[in-house]
This record gives sequence, C-alpha cells and structure tokens, in this order.
Amino acid sequence: MTLYLSRGSVLEAVNGSFSIKEFDLPAPDPGGVIVRQELAGMCGTDYHVFRGHWPNHPFPVLLGHENVGILHALGEGMTTDFAGRPVKVGDRVVTIATGGVCGQCYACVVLNQPGLCPNRAPGRATLDTVTGQGVHVFGGGYAELLRLQPNRYVMFKTDLDPATAVMLEPLSNSIHGFERSPVRIGDTVVIQGSGGIGLPTVAVAKLSGALRIIVVGGPKGRLDLCRECGADVCIDIEEVRSPEERIRIVREQTPQGIGADVIVGATGIAQTVTEGIAYLRPGGALCEIGNATDSGEIPFSPYRDLVSKRALLAGIAGTGVKHYALALRVLEKGGFPYQAMVSHQIPIDRVAEGINALGGGYRIDGRDAIKIAVAPNGPTG
Amino acid sequence: MTLYLSRGSVLEAVNGSFSIKEFDLPAPDPGGVIVRQELAGMCGTDYHVFRGHWPNHPFPVLLGHENVGILHALGEGMTTDFAGRPVKVGDRVVTIATGGVCGQCYACVVLNQPGLCPNRAPGRATLDTVTGQGVHVFGGGYAELLRLQPNRYVMFKTDLDPATAVMLEPLSNSIHGFERSPVRIGDTVVIQGSGGIGLPTVAVAKLSGALRIIVVGGPKGRLDLCRECGADVCIDIEEVRSPEERIRIVREQTPQGIGADVIVGATGIAQTVTEGIAYLRPGGALCEIGNATDSGEIPFSPYRDLVSKRALLAGIAGTGVKHYALALRVLEKGGFPYQAMVSHQIPIDRVAEGINALGGGYRIDGRDAIKIAVAPNGPTG
Amino acid sequence: MTLYLSRGSVLEAVNGSFSIKEFDLPAPDPGGVIVRQELAGMCGTDYHVFRGHWPNHPFPVLLGHENVGILHALGEGMTTDFAGRPVKVGDRVVTIATGGVCGQCYACVVLNQPGLCPNRAPGRATLDTVTGQGVHVFGGGYAELLRLQPNRYVMFKTDLDPATAVMLEPLSNSIHGFERSPVRIGDTVVIQGSGGIGLPTVAVAKLSGALRIIVVGGPKGRLDLCRECGADVCIDIEEVRSPEERIRIVREQTPQGIGADVIVGATGIAQTVTEGIAYLRPGGALCEIGNATDSGEIPFSPYRDLVSKRALLAGIAGTGVKHYALALRVLEKGGFPYQAMVSHQIPIDRVAEGINALGGGYRIDGRDAIKIAVAPNGPTG
Amino acid sequence: MTLYLSRGSVLEAVNGSFSIKEFDLPAPDPGGVIVRQELAGMCGTDYHVFRGHWPNHPFPVLLGHENVGILHALGEGMTTDFAGRPVKVGDRVVTIATGGVCGQCYACVVLNQPGLCPNRAPGRATLDTVTGQGVHVFGGGYAELLRLQPNRYVMFKTDLDPATAVMLEPLSNSIHGFERSPVRIGDTVVIQGSGGIGLPTVAVAKLSGALRIIVVGGPKGRLDLCRECGADVCIDIEEVRSPEERIRIVREQTPQGIGADVIVGATGIAQTVTEGIAYLRPGGALCEIGNATDSGEIPFSPYRDLVSKRALLAGIAGTGVKHYALALRVLEKGGFPYQAMVSHQIPIDRVAEGINALGGGYRIDGRDAIKIAVAPNGPTG
Repeated sequence: MTLYLSRGSVLEAVNGSFSIKEFDLPAPDPGGVIVRQELAGMCGTDYHVFRGHWPNHPFPVLLGHENVGILHALGEGMTTDFAGRPVKVGDRVVTIATGGVCGQCYACVVLNQPGLCPNRAPGRATLDTVTGQGVHVFGGGYAELLRLQPNRYVMFKTDLDPATAVMLEPLSNSIHGFERSPVRIGDTVVIQGSGGIGLPTVAVAKLSGALRIIVVGGPKGRLDLCRECGADVCIDIEEVRSPEERIRIVREQTPQGIGADVIVGATGIAQTVTEGIAYLRPGGALCEIGNATDSGEIPFSPYRDLVSKRALLAGIAGTGVKHYALALRVLEKGGFPYQAMVSHQIPIDRVAEGINALGGGYRIDGRDAIKIAVAPNGPTG
Repeated sequence: MTLYLSRGSVLEAVNGSFSIKEFDLPAPDPGGVIVRQELAGMCGTDYHVFRGHWPNHPFPVLLGHENVGILHALGEGMTTDFAGRPVKVGDRVVTIATGGVCGQCYACVVLNQPGLCPNRAPGRATLDTVTGQGVHVFGGGYAELLRLQPNRYVMFKTDLDPATAVMLEPLSNSIHGFERSPVRIGDTVVIQGSGGIGLPTVAVAKLSGALRIIVVGGPKGRLDLCRECGADVCIDIEEVRSPEERIRIVREQTPQGIGADVIVGATGIAQTVTEGIAYLRPGGALCEIGNATDSGEIPFSPYRDLVSKRALLAGIAGTGVKHYALALRVLEKGGFPYQAMVSHQIPIDRVAEGINALGGGYRIDGRDAIKIAVAPNGPTG
Repeated sequence: MTLYLSRGSVLEAVNGSFSIKEFDLPAPDPGGVIVRQELAGMCGTDYHVFRGHWPNHPFPVLLGHENVGILHALGEGMTTDFAGRPVKVGDRVVTIATGGVCGQCYACVVLNQPGLCPNRAPGRATLDTVTGQGVHVFGGGYAELLRLQPNRYVMFKTDLDPATAVMLEPLSNSIHGFERSPVRIGDTVVIQGSGGIGLPTVAVAKLSGALRIIVVGGPKGRLDLCRECGADVCIDIEEVRSPEERIRIVREQTPQGIGADVIVGATGIAQTVTEGIAYLRPGGALCEIGNATDSGEIPFSPYRDLVSKRALLAGIAGTGVKHYALALRVLEKGGFPYQAMVSHQIPIDRVAEGINALGGGYRIDGRDAIKIAVAPNGPTG
Repeated sequence: MTLYLSRGSVLEAVNGSFSIKEFDLPAPDPGGVIVRQELAGMCGTDYHVFRGHWPNHPFPVLLGHENVGILHALGEGMTTDFAGRPVKVGDRVVTIATGGVCGQCYACVVLNQPGLCPNRAPGRATLDTVTGQGVHVFGGGYAELLRLQPNRYVMFKTDLDPATAVMLEPLSNSIHGFERSPVRIGDTVVIQGSGGIGLPTVAVAKLSGALRIIVVGGPKGRLDLCRECGADVCIDIEEVRSPEERIRIVREQTPQGIGADVIVGATGIAQTVTEGIAYLRPGGALCEIGNATDSGEIPFSPYRDLVSKRALLAGIAGTGVKHYALALRVLEKGGFPYQAMVSHQIPIDRVAEGINALGGGYRIDGRDAIKIAVAPNGPTG
C-alpha cells in the first residue's frame, strides 16, 4: 500500500533531459514532515547544476529549493514550526533545506559560515523511484510531495498566498546583501539588475531607508515593477547602451555628483562590477549578490578601484535562517508587488523550459520571465 | 555488570545538604559521550540554585556546568569535536551544556537569544542512582563521570592543562560582555570587581586594545593578579572606602578628567552600578556582567544617568557557543596567569564548603577563594 | 543709517517676562550671514532656560535655535552653503548654531562629543539693542533678523516650505536616537510619546525598516498624525490608563509575545522609562531621546532591568551636523505630513504663550499644540 | 631684522633636484604656530610627488608632512593643543596638516570623507624664499622651521622622544585600516609587507586582539622587528619565493586550514592583492592600506574573489584627526619598538637620497631603510 506517492521532474545528467518519475515516499521520520507542494521557485543555481557548473554534483537529481506548500504529514514530535507556532496538517508552510548544518559549531556561530560546518548530517538525501532508481535530492521541490528529514530543514507557518511566499528566498538574499553593505537612512542606492534578484532588492532598499533608488536594468516591464517597489530612477540598458553614459547619469543623481553610497550587483555579469565601482562615491560600498557562478575576470586596479575610492567591496553566497526569518516578516508586512514578480507558474513537465529561460532566454509563452515557479499540483490562486 | 559507575555530590533541597551518591550510567547515546571529569568550576549560579533563587528548580540536583575532563566513552558517530577535529578516548575536552537549544530558529539566530528557543530538546536530563533515585542534572559536573546527550552539548578538544581550561566559561562571559560594550583601541576601561569574573575580564580588556585598565576591587592578592593581567591602576576598596573618592581617582586617570570610556561591572552588588555610571565619560558604555541574580534596586535618574551622560548601559546573562569558541582560542594563546585564578581544587565531598565560600565568605582552608574548582577524580597537575 | 534693524522677543530673567526689543545689527563678518527669519521652532530647551533649569545661564537672552529663513546679507567669502552648493541673497536656508566647536579635536572626532570640545570659539554671542542693552544670544531666532558669526554655525540651502524645514531639528534628534539603538529590518518599534519629538520619530522608524510601529501617547489628533506617519498600533494613554494593561497590549503585538525590539522614549517623564523597559524583549534596546532635563528618579534593578533582560539602554542629548544633514535629506524626500506637525505659527509678541504651552498646557487658541513655531515676519505659506 | 629664518630642501620639478633654500617666515598668525623641526618622516607620497604621479602638483615644493618638533612661536590665542592641554614655547608637539577641511560639512561628518570637503580653506600655502621665490608647501617639514596657519593643522603636545613620535602618521594609518576591516578577539591576521607601513600594523594587530599574526615580507632585519611587535609567524619572501607556497603556509597556520580572518595589504604591489585574497577564509576581510598610487591592474573574478569567498575588500587613503589622536595614545602607552622602526635620520641636504631609497632601493649608508626621517636641526637623541 502506498501512502505517499509523488511525481517529480528528474534531471538525468549535465545538460540532460528532465523526465517525470514516480516516487514512493516513506512516512516522515520523527521530527520530519511531508509537504504537498504549491510552488517551487526556479533559481539560477538550478541552471548551474544543469550546466555542470557545480563540480561533482551527482545525478540523476531532483531540484527545487524555494518551496511553499501544505503540510501533508507530520513526523512524531512535530507540533510547532521553527518559531514555536503550533502546526497541523493542512497549514501552509515555507520550508528551507539547511544542508544539515549543526548551528552550534565554530563555523556556524563564530564565522557565520555554515558552509564550513564540520558537523553536517552525513551523506546527501536520496529518494527511490517506484522502480527502484536512486535519485539525489537538491531541494526536491519539483515534485508533488516534498519529504523533509529532521535536522536538515527549517519550516515556518504562513498565511501568505503561495506566489508571495515563494519570493522568500530571493528576498532573504537581498536582506543578506544589505547586511554586508548596510544602507544608512538618506543613502542613494543603485541596484544593478531588475530580475528575480534585483526586484526584491529594490523593495529591501526602500525599507532600509534609501532615499534615492536607482535601477540599472530592463526590459520595460521589469522597470515598471521596480518603480512600484520604490525606484526613483530607472536606467534602461537597452536605451542607454553606453556604460560611460550610465555612469554619468548615476552620478548626476547624487548630491554634488559624488556618486552613490551603496551599490548592489544583481546581474551575474562580471563586467557590471567594474561599472558599479565607477558609480560609487569615495567611501561607498558595493555588494555583489548575483554572480553566483563564474562569469569571468575583469581588470581590477587595487589603487583605482579600492584605495583611491576608499571603497568597500563585498560578496555573499547563500543565506541563513536569520535572513529567511526576517524575509518572512517583510513579506507578511506587504506593501510591495511581490506576486507580480512571479511571472510564470509552470507544471512539472515544463521544468526544462524554465531552465532554458534562466539560461538567457528569459521568455516563456512569449512573455518576459522574471521569477518562474513550478506548480507541481496545478496553478495556485 | 556496571560499565560506568560514577559518584557525585547531590544537593537534596533548597538550602539543603550535599551528599555523595552512586550512579550507574548507561552507555553513551549515538552522538553522545561520557567524560571522566578533571575539574568542574564552581559558579555563582550554583549558589543561587542552592539558595532557591532559581524559581521552581527541581531537586535533588547534580550541579557543575564548567567542565573539563578526559573522553571516557564515545557514542556511535562521535569522531570529531564541534570544530571538526578528530577525537578519541583519552583526549582532553572542555564540554558545554547547551540546554538543547536548536541553533536554527528565530530566537537562536535572529534575536541571538537562545534562552527563548521554542525548539529545545524537551524535558530536563535526569540520572538514576544505583538505588533508583531520580536526580535532576544541571550541568552534572560534580561527579566522577559526566554523561552528555546528543543535541544538548558542545565539546572542544584541547591540550590546555585542566586548571587553565576550567576558566573557559568565565572568560567566555567576559568576551560576551565586551561584545555588548566594545572596547576601541586606546580606551580607558574600568573593571568593577576582581574575583572569578573580574579577573578574566582584565585579560580580555587588555587583549581588546584598552590602553589604560583600572580595577576597583580587592583584596590585595587578587589585585596583584589583576596587575599581572595588565591592570594599570588598582583601587583597593578596603583602602579607598568612599565611592566619591574612588570616582575622583578614576576620573583623574582619564584624559582631561572626562571619565572612562568603558565600564564592566562584575561585583554582583546593585549599588556598584550607580558608582560605575559616575565613572563614565559622556558617550561611554557600561556593561553589567555580574548581578546574575536580584541584588536590589538603586535610584536611577533617566536624565542624570542616561540622557545627560549620553550613556549606553548593557547587561548580559549567559554566553553562547560563539563566546566559548573564542574563549578557547584566547586560553590556548596564553600570556595571562589563568591557572593562578583557580585558587582551590576541592574533592566532591567538600562541595558544600565551596558553595559557602561563593555565598560571601570567599575563604577556604584559610585562603582567599577566587575560582574554586571541584576535582572529582583527585587534584590535577 | 541703520542697515540691519531687527525686532526680537527678549526674556528678561528666570521665569521672567518676554518683551520686544529693537536691535541694530552690524553687517555680517567675513564667513557670516544675516538671515531674515521665516520660522523659529520652539523647543523644550527654551522652556528649561525660562524655568532656570539651565545652570548659570545669563540673562537677558534672545532664544530660538530651530531656524529657517531667507538669506538677507552675505559676509565676505560666503558663496556656498556647507554642502558646497552656491548661495545668494534671497535663497531659503536652514541654519544651525554649532556653539563654536572645532570639529577637529579628540572630543569632536574621537569621542563624538562636541559638547566636550576644548577649542570652542571663546565667549558667548551677544547683541546690543538700539538703546545699548547687551542681550545674550541662545539661538537668537525669535527675531526678525538672525546674525550668524563665522565658525559658529552651519547652513544648508533648501527648497522646502518653511513649515517642513522647521522640523529639521526634531527630525535630526530622532535620527540620532536610532543611531544609538539601531532598527533592523523587520523590527517592532515602540515610541513613547506622540508630540513634537515622538511624531518625527515615527517617520524615522518607518524609514528605518520597522515593520510594526506602536505608539503610546495621545491625544487623538496626534495619534491620527502618528498613523499617517506609519504607526500600526496607537495606544491612547487617556483610554488605557494602566501601565500594566499597556505593557500587555504592546507584548501582544509582538511575535510570540516576547516584547518589542526597540523602544524610543520621547515623553520627558522619568516613569515611562520603567514602563518602556517592560515592553522590551530580551536583548532589545531602549533609547531615551526626551528627558532632556531632570524629571526625577525611578527605582531600577540592575538584575531585573539590565541583566535578566540582556537590555541595552541608551540616552542622547543634542545632535550633530551629521544628523542635521541626514534629516534634511529625509525632509526633502517627503512622504510624511511634516507640515501638519507644526500646529501653530505665532508672532514674536506671543512667545510667552508658546513657552507656557511647552510647560504643560499644550494648548494655544483652544487647539492642541504639537510643534509651535515663531514667525517673526508674519505667517508663512 | 629677521625673526624667523629657516633653511629647507626644495624640490624644483618632477624628477628634479632638491636644493637648500633660505626662507624668511612671517610671525605666526593668530591661531597659528611656528615649530622648530626635530624630525620629519619621509613618506611614499613624497616619492610620488617627486615622480609626478600626483597630477598637476605645483612646483617648486617643500615636502615633509610627518612632523614632530618644539614650539618656537605661538600666534595670538594659542594657549592649548587640540586636546585642550596648555602649551608654551619649548613644548614638544606633533603637528598634522589637515588641508583646511572644515570638519562641519556633509563630506566631513556624514560621509567621513574630508577629501570631499567643499569648505576647504582656499588656495594652497606658499612660502617666499629670501630672494623672493614663491615655494609651494606640501607639509613643509623638510625645513628647520615649520609655520602652520590657523584652520589648516592639528597639533598635540607629547612627551614622547622624537623618533617614537615621528611614527604617528604610519601608526594612524594602521589604525584606520583596522577600522575598515575590524579584528575580532581571537582572529588570525596576515600582514603583507614589513616596511614602514607594515611594521606598525603588526603592533596595532597585536593590540586589537589578533591571536595569530602572520607577516609576509622581508628582509630578515625587518622580520625580526615584526617578531618583537608580536608576529607569530614570519614568511620571508626571499626564502619562500612562490606565492602558492606562501598561500599554503598561511592556510596551514589557521584553524582547520580555512584561511585567515583579516588581511592587511601594505606592500604597494598590485599582485599581492591577488595573493592576499587567496589567504582569506570564507567571510574574511582584506584591507589595502598601501597601494597609494597606481601599481597596475590584476585579473579579478567577481565570482572567485568576492562572491564564492563571501569576501569583504576595503581600501583606505589618508587618515583623520581621529586616527592621529588614537595613534598618539597608542604610542604613549609604549610596549613596542617604535624607535627601532626609524632606521635613518638624515640632514636636509640628503633628502634626495631618502627619496631614492623610497623609490625601491631601500638602502642608505649600506643599511636597510625602514622609516627614514629628516632631522633638519641635527640628529635627535
């Protein structure tokens, strides 16, 4: 008798195909849960696994790590979410895989680098298909059901609609970025990029006290959303094609033309870092929150780009429970068009199209793709 | 057949007697360990449990939460300490009970207040004596063997001698205090109190860039140790009995008499906070790291003590893994007379004498007691 | 021939009367200016000078230090404001008396305590009336013309309307307060008081990323303005008269009832600090930005109010050019009902009524007074 | 009658010669002073002016901006130093040219970028030789007498010996660097370079709580001084010539080989930034305090060098009064071999030799040059 039968979209190999497989899930472990997926956000990381940029990643793999859904089964002892609120089957939750880090060691608590945690729960999760094929799990959200193991996830109950809730991870990334290069009330902030990472960054900049927000991106539909999020000035890279001209415009928008206080890079293109440094005022800070995979080298002069600018350049990769918890509060407060950032909901048999769009096309069904979400059990409200 | 027989000093009730009981310990759980205790530091908290200041604390109880010892048995899967270093039976370790907090929730990671963690491992540890009596465990270090359960402790391997290692918790407390009221290079720092909390605070102040360290305390032996730790000026409260005179001396030692930059309170006496605020320069900070139990009220004027002083007043209670990990590095670097701070090593059948000394006598065997450590298996080197 | 004849409202003595005097102003010094006053905000400090709370303050005195007006005459070399923008006669400026601090010494730049500056321009400014009476100047804004001396003021050009611009000093105070007890995105902030200090604090809390803002104050008209500034919850102290009940309501509005992250005190009543500490979550921060004069003592327990709460308590007094410059940016961005905070504009011959209202009446012309501004040259748009 | 006749070493042109000229100094202005020079430290900046790297710098010029000497004449009103201590003719002072910045504007106090101050005292100081030639002054310390103009300098009285006092500016630079990339107690710090900038940086790292200090530099004599300052490990670049090998050694010295917490770059060679980033642990910080002039470009990958490392890269140029005031406190505390860092004292007619040494030779009189100081009135004790 199969209690928990699930269908998911499995990637077979680097640059390979996605195919729908059936899984027979064991009941949840004590401390674990099973979630009926509503939406799984597609992330640049998925594209990089697909392209083989993630060294030695095992295949076949079930992707999808930005997950929201309905509690379907609770393991023994699971009576509350990770903020202590009671949960029951039927509640909506956002879930975050933590990779089994311990949260108690030198790397986790002193260095704030859980990626270095030596106490990770060993091994990597796998699932078996009904035909007995072992499938590696990286998130596992591109499936009807998501089975989460104890000490490997965090879960928060929420009353948000699924399309808003699926923006949790991108928003937590923006919050992490501004933690590294803080906005002070009154600052001028430039955001490079207006996609699924740049857009929530505009909202967080607005909430953080930026008084002038400049977005350098495109196309027009995204820039309209940026304006709804609080952008004061949008520079459309299709209209203003010269970096020099963009630098001139940005500086013109700052007091006495001295340059911007904070830059956040969210394009994934190495060259935009050079352009971003040119936007900076002396003593300003730039934080790169895109470029999560190698996009090449740029010429860099320690004197020109760091010393003479008194610059502070920072990079982040990944976010922690802290940023997720703050991001959930921000989403629940509302006031920004989060839902509209989810441009597409696609079924699990169209994951390949989503991956393609992330790879550069950025169009699905003839429309510009911003955030694409997989809806394994059909479209949500 | 009894593999793990241990004798410990059990406190029967509030203000009750301590008696030696025998325990029959189960083998360690997976992820747990058994440690053969070398030293267990005695802490003011123990005294407060004894006196009933800790509301609803269950009895009988086995105290002792500042522990160093030798790994005696390793549970399944225990191959490294919490910094990822390999461990084996026979290694020396410092162990810290974490109270079973999750390290992954809003309270733990956003608020940095693990005391509010809603996901604590349920219940409280108990041990059974060989005659079947249930004994509550608060630390449990005043016994020959210490049995630690998974998800409830942190452990670091060390090559320190036991008397130095047992200073880990007090030192972590000092580090936590300066995290709340940071020392800037060049600051004048006043430490109120020269006992088991004040002394390591002098060392941490020195390491943190304080250029002038003033200690207000006594008696002479402790002040000598303070000087060895880097105190520039020691004010003996038995010689200078007037708070006004002490305030005058402190201010005289600061540039242009403006007052000290940072004060750390480590006396446990409410009135010393009033005196400490009077030491402060405008814009300075005072952190109270003693006063861990109620010592009464003081008159406080928001205008005089906070606004007109532009003061910053902070309090800490408890420390986290972060502070322990940093403290261990500091101990391992050396350069301060940590061993000499441990004034007494006593066997488990003299715990009551230690508790008495903590309650105000501060003398054992005719000598001033600074840090008292219980040595359950005989004195260490 | 008199080039610069000015009439001002002079306070004769402690608790004395205000009378209109005529002044004959010298032409501006090199580096100085003369400003034709539009508005001079009335500040609690004025009331305290009136009541004699300011020790040894000389009389007679011309008060008024929150000034906006039109440049009337420029001293030699004055071609720009302090942000480097060109200025000419006829431009609107906000001006701030700096007390002649040097901005270059240990107190000014290391301690950030210009009040301790040893290099202040010597003496205190005085003006002579046409009949030769010497009048001390504390601000000097309650007069038709304001004469500012080099190295004793800062001036910024602005296009704001005068009623908005006159909120510069209160807003800079709020910004200073949050600098001492920073808001983190997502925080719950409580503001005690809804008057001329509390109201702009609500706006700054909103801009700083507070997601839930609770105001404890009254009466209703002010609370309505607080809601316009972004307050989510207003507790009317006339309706909820019990501190215990107010504490209950505040905590109920926080996640899991743990208490608020940040409290800002803006009432000037000592007892509200006790109430504010009770609102705080463990690890939270309270900053007192009112209580600029002695309002008595409260009972304070270092254990209960500081240590067990892991609290951080801060106080500020005065603001610096930094806060003024940031506040001007915030005002110029708009988005909050600053003008509506200026409840009354009164001519110089009604200064005594304004002082009375500050002393507790808070009513002029039968209406609740929030911020009262003196309009020496007639009401502004 | 000439009251203040002075001889100084004037640089005639880019890459030009230095020649001794006589100056006839006016009496000090009100608020100004004349100092009889004891030592003037030679700085890389002097070399860069010599080589023409400083665009449009006017010639002829009198260099020397790291000055210590004896008060020779006091202008009207000069009764205290900038910390408020009384001064009189005959007192030793360190003096710092501030460039005439105002310390009161948006750039000075909000941005902390006095280099952007729009209110600088206009023009640039010049002196006339006895034959009427106008000479530009950049510091002006390579002369017997130093004439300082009001609002253009800061001065602190000191009892330090001149050779220690002349280390003020380099030390303030190190303090500024660690302000941008703070050391936390327990950190491992790597300092790249062991010359006049690197050496005081070792001392500041030690004072700031670094528990392991690694220096990458040479030659041997300098590394010996580094060890005296607290370096735990010195890597001699003449012995370990391969960057890869140096990276391996640095990482080996860090817990679990994760890399260093903080790197300070003090070599002036662009390529060492690439090497420094490779030393860093994930989440670590690198601050470049050398490279004060263009030393070329390095290949830089935003992904590899910033994002994947979660790195923070910072640069500083110049220091403020704040850093000088702190540095003076540090020097006065003692405990480090500051005097020994001043390897050479040369008379004003050998300035050209000093400049040559700064340009790469680093040898004078057959000995390794670390800090070279010009002694215009003969060698000091």
